[in-house]
Amino acid sequence: MSDHLSRTFAALADPTRRAILARLSSGEANVSELAQPFLKNMSLPAVTKHLKVLESAGLVSKGRNAQWRPCRLNGEPLRDAVDWMEEHRIAWEEQLDRLGAYLKTKTRGAQHGHKK
Amino acid sequence: MSDHLSRTFAALADPTRRAILARLSSGEANVSELAQPFLKNMSLPAVTKHLKVLESAGLVSKGRNAQWRPCRLNGEPLRDAVDWMEEHRIAWEEQLDRLGAYLKTKTRGAQHGHKK
Repeated sequence: MSDHLSRTFAALADPTRRAILARLSSGEANVSELAQPFLKNMSLPAVTKHLKVLESAGLVSKGRNAQWRPCRLNGEPLRDAVDWMEEHRIAWEEQLDRLGAYLKTKTRGAQHGHKK
Repeated sequence: MSDHLSRTFAALADPTRRAILARLSSGEANVSELAQPFLKNMSLPAVTKHLKVLESAGLVSKGRNAQWRPCRLNGEPLRDAVDWMEEHRIAWEEQLDRLGAYLKTKTRGAQHGHKK
């Protein structure tokens, strides 16, 4: 699972990691701020482990300041993942449209036959 | 990892599974048709295992006809995943816009100061 799209989707496959990304989408935060909402249900090392998954997937990066190293969202890999899904969704919706159009002609044909 | 969004993202976290979904987005196909492009690099059981992951995530379903059980794409879970990402992307892009606007005022201020 070395390709970057797979790493992005794997990183998204967890509710804690998605919640961290959602928090970071409203602005930078340090590790203790990010961990705070989860500490009722999990340990700090568990939260930092999730953060490391997000970092190694390239979705989160840390500032360089030694004193204050805020985590921030890196949207680039996320955009690639959205692009893949959008491309896929268009094809799927076209498929549904074709099916819908086919069923419409069938229904019309049946109604026409009925009137005769 | 019992929530459906996590299952969807985990199912997407593999290039073979994404290729199967891409193939199914252009129409139904049976297992051997789906497996064919991958058999140079993996065994048939390996491909069917990937198909089972897609089925249990609800992304693919099989027809009921005993003779011809085509696999088809089920776009519903995919749409939920796209919705989550789009919501997230909007927030992330707003954050970038705010940063851009802030930098613009800073640059303008500096230019103005320089003219004085």
